[in-house]
Amino acid sequence: MGIINGKKFIDRIDQMNSEIWVDGERIVGMLSEHPAFKGIIQTKASLYNLQNNPCHKDQMTYLSPETGDPIGLSYSQPKTIEDLKRRRKMFEIWARHTHGLMGRSPDYMNTVIMSFASSSAALLKGKENCFPENIIALYEKAKEHDLSFTHTFITPQINRSQYNFDSSKEPISAKVIDKNEQGIVIKGARLLATQGGITDEVLVYTAPKKFMDPDEAFAFSIPSNTKGLKFICRETFVGEESHFNHPLSSRYEEMDSIVVFDNVLVPWDRVFFYDNVEAAVDFMFHSSFHHFATHQVLTRQIVKTEFILGLAELLVETINVQEYQHIQEKLSEIIVGLETMKALLEKSENDAAFDEWGYMRPSLLPLQVATNIYPKIYPRFCEIIQLIGASGMVTLPSEKAFESEIGADLEQYLQGVNKTAVERVKLFRLAWDLTMSSFGTRQTQYERYFFGDPIQLASNLYKHYPFAEQVNKINNFLSSSE
Amino acid sequence: MGIINGKKFIDRIDQMNSEIWVDGERIVGMLSEHPAFKGIIQTKASLYNLQNNPCHKDQMTYLSPETGDPIGLSYSQPKTIEDLKRRRKMFEIWARHTHGLMGRSPDYMNTVIMSFASSSAALLKGKENCFPENIIALYEKAKEHDLSFTHTFITPQINRSQYNFDSSKEPISAKVIDKNEQGIVIKGARLLATQGGITDEVLVYTAPKKFMDPDEAFAFSIPSNTKGLKFICRETFVGEESHFNHPLSSRYEEMDSIVVFDNVLVPWDRVFFYDNVEAAVDFMFHSSFHHFATHQVLTRQIVKTEFILGLAELLVETINVQEYQHIQEKLSEIIVGLETMKALLEKSENDAAFDEWGYMRPSLLPLQVATNIYPKIYPRFCEIIQLIGASGMVTLPSEKAFESEIGADLEQYLQGVNKTAVERVKLFRLAWDLTMSSFGTRQTQYERYFFGDPIQLASNLYKHYPFAEQVNKINNFLSSSE
Amino acid sequence: MGIINGKKFIDRIDQMNSEIWVDGERIVGMLSEHPAFKGIIQTKASLYNLQNNPCHKDQMTYLSPETGDPIGLSYSQPKTIEDLKRRRKMFEIWARHTHGLMGRSPDYMNTVIMSFASSSAALLKGKENCFPENIIALYEKAKEHDLSFTHTFITPQINRSQYNFDSSKEPISAKVIDKNEQGIVIKGARLLATQGGITDEVLVYTAPKKFMDPDEAFAFSIPSNTKGLKFICRETFVGEESHFNHPLSSRYEEMDSIVVFDNVLVPWDRVFFYDNVEAAVDFMFHSSFHHFATHQVLTRQIVKTEFILGLAELLVETINVQEYQHIQEKLSEIIVGLETMKALLEKSENDAAFDEWGYMRPSLLPLQVATNIYPKIYPRFCEIIQLIGASGMVTLPSEKAFESEIGADLEQYLQGVNKTAVERVKLFRLAWDLTMSSFGTRQTQYERYFFGDPIQLASNLYKHYPFAEQVNKINNFLSSSE
Amino acid sequence: MGIINGKKFIDRIDQMNSEIWVDGERIVGMLSEHPAFKGIIQTKASLYNLQNNPCHKDQMTYLSPETGDPIGLSYSQPKTIEDLKRRRKMFEIWARHTHGLMGRSPDYMNTVIMSFASSSAALLKGKENCFPENIIALYEKAKEHDLSFTHTFITPQINRSQYNFDSSKEPISAKVIDKNEQGIVIKGARLLATQGGITDEVLVYTAPKKFMDPDEAFAFSIPSNTKGLKFICRETFVGEESHFNHPLSSRYEEMDSIVVFDNVLVPWDRVFFYDNVEAAVDFMFHSSFHHFATHQVLTRQIVKTEFILGLAELLVETINVQEYQHIQEKLSEIIVGLETMKALLEKSENDAAFDEWGYMRPSLLPLQVATNIYPKIYPRFCEIIQLIGASGMVTLPSEKAFESEIGADLEQYLQGVNKTAVERVKLFRLAWDLTMSSFGTRQTQYERYFFGDPIQLASNLYKHYPFAEQVNKINNFLSSSE
Repeated sequence: MGIINGKKFIDRIDQMNSEIWVDGERIVGMLSEHPAFKGIIQTKASLYNLQNNPCHKDQMTYLSPETGDPIGLSYSQPKTIEDLKRRRKMFEIWARHTHGLMGRSPDYMNTVIMSFASSSAALLKGKENCFPENIIALYEKAKEHDLSFTHTFITPQINRSQYNFDSSKEPISAKVIDKNEQGIVIKGARLLATQGGITDEVLVYTAPKKFMDPDEAFAFSIPSNTKGLKFICRETFVGEESHFNHPLSSRYEEMDSIVVFDNVLVPWDRVFFYDNVEAAVDFMFHSSFHHFATHQVLTRQIVKTEFILGLAELLVETINVQEYQHIQEKLSEIIVGLETMKALLEKSENDAAFDEWGYMRPSLLPLQVATNIYPKIYPRFCEIIQLIGASGMVTLPSEKAFESEIGADLEQYLQGVNKTAVERVKLFRLAWDLTMSSFGTRQTQYERYFFGDPIQLASNLYKHYPFAEQVNKINNFLSSSE
Repeated sequence: MGIINGKKFIDRIDQMNSEIWVDGERIVGMLSEHPAFKGIIQTKASLYNLQNNPCHKDQMTYLSPETGDPIGLSYSQPKTIEDLKRRRKMFEIWARHTHGLMGRSPDYMNTVIMSFASSSAALLKGKENCFPENIIALYEKAKEHDLSFTHTFITPQINRSQYNFDSSKEPISAKVIDKNEQGIVIKGARLLATQGGITDEVLVYTAPKKFMDPDEAFAFSIPSNTKGLKFICRETFVGEESHFNHPLSSRYEEMDSIVVFDNVLVPWDRVFFYDNVEAAVDFMFHSSFHHFATHQVLTRQIVKTEFILGLAELLVETINVQEYQHIQEKLSEIIVGLETMKALLEKSENDAAFDEWGYMRPSLLPLQVATNIYPKIYPRFCEIIQLIGASGMVTLPSEKAFESEIGADLEQYLQGVNKTAVERVKLFRLAWDLTMSSFGTRQTQYERYFFGDPIQLASNLYKHYPFAEQVNKINNFLSSSE
Repeated sequence: MGIINGKKFIDRIDQMNSEIWVDGERIVGMLSEHPAFKGIIQTKASLYNLQNNPCHKDQMTYLSPETGDPIGLSYSQPKTIEDLKRRRKMFEIWARHTHGLMGRSPDYMNTVIMSFASSSAALLKGKENCFPENIIALYEKAKEHDLSFTHTFITPQINRSQYNFDSSKEPISAKVIDKNEQGIVIKGARLLATQGGITDEVLVYTAPKKFMDPDEAFAFSIPSNTKGLKFICRETFVGEESHFNHPLSSRYEEMDSIVVFDNVLVPWDRVFFYDNVEAAVDFMFHSSFHHFATHQVLTRQIVKTEFILGLAELLVETINVQEYQHIQEKLSEIIVGLETMKALLEKSENDAAFDEWGYMRPSLLPLQVATNIYPKIYPRFCEIIQLIGASGMVTLPSEKAFESEIGADLEQYLQGVNKTAVERVKLFRLAWDLTMSSFGTRQTQYERYFFGDPIQLASNLYKHYPFAEQVNKINNFLSSSE
Repeated sequence: MGIINGKKFIDRIDQMNSEIWVDGERIVGMLSEHPAFKGIIQTKASLYNLQNNPCHKDQMTYLSPETGDPIGLSYSQPKTIEDLKRRRKMFEIWARHTHGLMGRSPDYMNTVIMSFASSSAALLKGKENCFPENIIALYEKAKEHDLSFTHTFITPQINRSQYNFDSSKEPISAKVIDKNEQGIVIKGARLLATQGGITDEVLVYTAPKKFMDPDEAFAFSIPSNTKGLKFICRETFVGEESHFNHPLSSRYEEMDSIVVFDNVLVPWDRVFFYDNVEAAVDFMFHSSFHHFATHQVLTRQIVKTEFILGLAELLVETINVQEYQHIQEKLSEIIVGLETMKALLEKSENDAAFDEWGYMRPSLLPLQVATNIYPKIYPRFCEIIQLIGASGMVTLPSEKAFESEIGADLEQYLQGVNKTAVERVKLFRLAWDLTMSSFGTRQTQYERYFFGDPIQLASNLYKHYPFAEQVNKINNFLSSSE
């Protein structure tokens, strides 16, 4: 079958009838018509349409060797640097369509599934409770049916002390509480599945940590409508449907949900591994997950940064402040961030190397460096937008105001340099929705924590850096008499 | 008559029937019942009640020498340092009641009116088109009737180039377009009257600038329901009425409005001055406006910072992260900011001095220094809250969710260290509403720009600093042979 | 006897013949004529002269109740806030004389001795191995003879891991290795006695730490020429004697030394306590040491900051760059730092309170806040000087060059706005000596670490802050239904 | 002839007998034996030897098409990306030999001369007073004789106001004051020729500026011993000859000098252009000068950053502080800076393109971005070294101290984890010499201003950035109804 289009995606999601709770009520009826999901589902559908669009199809798909059907390129397993660069161009097309604002665009999760499959052999070597064949099977199914996914791996934030052990009687963090002939039984919760409930499948695993409980050492994927699986949503950040008033949240609000496992049975053929701490840790560190996933994420973040840069410059032109040195410095700060990210991404591709299973992985070091940079610069860029916008970020009359009797006043008093008041207000509402609305600030928090705790990222970069050569040089210099 | 209570305030506002536009519709009926205003009017009413409360009345009022009635202490004209300290304690009581979150609490504007009156003599000396007696008369009326005010002085942000001159045919920035026997006629707009429409009066003037048009060189105060005066509101940032879901915006969202003057007649007895650029500039720089207003503002900002510090620490305790050095550093950063602000405020009082009209002004330099600090630290403190809260800032189920069938799941999975899930979620919703909701980010922008463009604030601090003594010391040192 | 003058100080130091090593050689002959010490000893002598100067004597001394002799005011034990303010004015006079550049001016150590004496009762309550009477005796002697002191308390930086225990056979960090009838015997080293060797006495103790060895839990003071006591100096940072070329190091280079205890016998009447970990910890935390010492240090740092501000402004005027916004911002940054320090110091005095022994201590919190600020702003201010100076910080011909045949070229090509080349170069050499010479960078490191590890300072501020009230307010707000 | 070796270089420089003034005295005799120049000349000689070393000769030279002699590769005119990468490897070899600490290594100036020659056609098109053939001739001579160069282009820092015009009667900034049959006559000064006097030639031109005087619109190159040419040195920053005590300044102190033109006659065949403001501006902006020079500079700065990283890590290991999160963060900051610079440099090569004369230029944008980054991170990295070193940066006994009677004490008390005291002190002296000695701080200022005023760099990056595409995307988004 291969790639689907937007309609197929919507139909599939609407038919799943997964258990999704919003504001204390379980959603019944078409998910794609629910105000909290309508916009994002439409936008996601438009991405699926894009890969069917003759202008892009060649860049976004490849032909299945088995069936000859076109398959989404994000499922492709790269074997050359050229393959990596093709993948990146495909990421860019989808990212540009959504201006980098959809964190969980299909290519992200497809890439994750692809990386799991490509590294499944890491689980092979006679390891206990490991089923690499189930990863492969899922990957094949996903690519032939263009399945959509989310994943969930953060444990509830009860107590973040490093010396804390979960001692509650009833599970809080999701764990295996039983196993039987059909599979393993899961009870407990995971936090923050973005787009939870609006995908075909949920990939579930536990981020490795210091003292890992074997009951939490698992990974699997199940359909979103599996019995006992509940998605409890946060408050929606869709401002309202008007693109004028809420240009971003009306299109890109993805929703995050708490995922509750109420004695969920995971069939054996869906289990990748369980009760194996070593496998859990090892798989995360030796698989190509970080390489391929970060390759996609940075591509999206670069596109998003281009969007911010364009927005910043348009604000500057609209209120005519190009001449101020501090404005020039602020814009140059965004340029530096953008071009740095681009150079690091490109270096990761140029320094790519084969992994032990013959796949071409982008080099991790430049990617890691970028993941240390972006969580700091993204919030700063949002601040820069606010500092440029100044009082304009608060002077935000609505679409209806412009259409009403007082519209003429607004037209006169809110005009910009070479912009009508409508154009000007739309621009500032965009700046506001990106950086100051509930939607925008959630994006900031999302980018800040995408790769995990920033402090930990810095520690990891330090701990894994190959210092030997540089340190030797100093030692040699110190013992040299020249 | 003297001080009013909350009911009186609400009645008066409801009866004014000022022309206020929200989302394209003019408000009809009780303003105090409109969803966008209900919360803030209730909160403001509670402040008026507080000054009638026997526990606080002594600290919040003084007796009118003329009538013997209790008058709001914010109207008092300080003549001793002790008077200043009493005024500050009164500011604190109101600020604590609203946690520093109401920018335009009555004491702010009362203080502004008091400062205008105390400096009215600056306009006396035979200056053209100056009517200091009208300031005095307004001040007397305001204090005897406990009138509420807003002010508006920012010109529309059409073109911020320093070489730009307004050349539009129709006025954009509000100006005098005519004068007649009854008064002067104003046409054009002013930006961003906070609480515009929910006060008895609007004080209007123009912030001095480089190339000031005489038509803009005016100051006056008129009732909010003056004919031709329109308040066009931005989108409301009241999330909803639930204190659980939106603990701050449901209480403290003040609304900002564009103020349109549609050929508004300002009666002669309300005009302070007009068509006098020198007076406009001079009055702003030599009056006690900056001294007294900043004295109130910093007091409120200190209370707000205490609120942030308490919130930060409670978050830290709730997820048990006290042990991390970076957390300790972040909290210490807030402590340093808070204690610095307190020390500067106190110094401004201790260094207070008489002005030429016999009033005791707080010293400007420490106040100025604080106004250079706060616009930088407030946004940083909001960022610190977000960095402590991490994923908890996004895991935000609603009140109804807790009351529904899935409430039990939430209770189990969202509990904190020594907190129930309800308590924990309420806390994080508060952190979110303060720093990430549309209400919260508007507060950030408000504090950032309260005293004007931060770049300009730094320039002003430099330009007016008395360097001579320090520079002489260097010169002496350089020419010393010792 | 009471206060001494400069000559007396020099004579005393010259006669001590303490064991001081510079560049591998033990100093023989007059210390006051050694190139590494000449400048600082002269400068220190000028401070002693200042307290005999009729213009300042009243502000710098008080009369001994016992002898009627004038005593240095730094020895006075404050009992009122007014006493504190008098002490501060005295600190200022000395600090201004040296522009805040002498870290160990006599008032610093006199204040330390005074604080030890004022708190000696903390050791009274029947504690083992504690001799508070020896502290009192030393204090009496010091004030009657105007003794000069240094102190040393940092342990060698062998291994800074928090899990490290000194396991070397031979002592590295100084410890008690024996005791006998005459006293205790010390072997090992302490780091970084500033002015080590050029004072009458050395005060020795151990900064409290996590796992304190009882052998290190001591405090005492001994004459610098005690047998077995050696001061091993670092390289001198005196550039040369020319005030033109090296205006600061030729006057203020204080020297730091490693203090070696080679089986030094400390007589019983000089021991304050030993072999008592509890006393060591307790005395440091409950004595008034931090209060009074920090009060002096901040006063000096404020004077130093005034010097920096004057220097920065004079550079700005000399190359005529006042008009640049980024220059204005940089200067305003120094102003903000200076005024903040002043406000905090003043608040510490205004909030002073009696300790349990009846002495008036400045409030610790504002002092602590300032000690968290200064180590960050001082290096930044040095950077600002460099950023203003730009190429001028490198274009530094010498005094002799001006006096030579090519002097005329220099006069023509290095002139400034309203400055001759000589004046201009002297100014830039001053800026260089303050921020870029070995003398200057050592000052930076000195201010950065004066109060200890900056990370630890932040942790301490956090750990001892009284959060309860602020946290309660949040809890109350969250449970309020209003 | 082609490449020279170290001996040849020294002989040539010693024989020139250029007019160099140090501390008021003109140098007579062998320059290579003068204490201020001995170290740097030896080091430079070792670089020339390196290109004759069989291990490196292939990487560092190419064969002259005319003579078949080996020519320094820095003179090669790149025509492919591969050529650029070869050039970069050659830069690295020399930079590694000096740890990036020699700013004016021969390859830098050779590259400048090469870029001038490659772009000389920019002056061809019938422009007045332009002599591109002289550039070519000089280039040919330089490469065949391996000439060494410095350049000088900064005007004296008399008055940096943007509205200042040099109105002095006698020239201050060097200008053409006459022309005659032999050539043009120059009078006045230029600032800061690094290595001025120890090169065969001096390249002189004027950095383009807003209001350029035609008399200053020139470029030429002349031998360092040209009549009337004087180099007036700043104070030397060679600490002393001991590599132990001053490991860096004893080897790498380059000296900066003021260059005085005392009616210097520049022969016509050495003039590139004069009295042509348009040519002066145009040549700087359209030639490949910035491209090729920055390509070399960044390569050196990357090598220097590797040196800093190695040093930082070795300090960390020596005092055993790897476990601290703030240390890990500081080291990761250096890693991020280093890897970012590497990625940008590589991108500039991969994005290289032909210029209009057929040479392959590295892409300017990534280079520009790096030049905006390095002046900020280099000083920060020096600060990090100081923050890691803490008290160890001041505890610096000398080589002689170790060799003396008290050497045993030092050995005991200054040992490190797995380091003897000698090793440990040598390491800290290195850290000190790099970041805190007069040599080190001059390096900081040098890197900070290498590419000019950092504020201006940011403005330039902004002003030349191609925003159109990004801005259009925003406009399209705003007008989209999807």
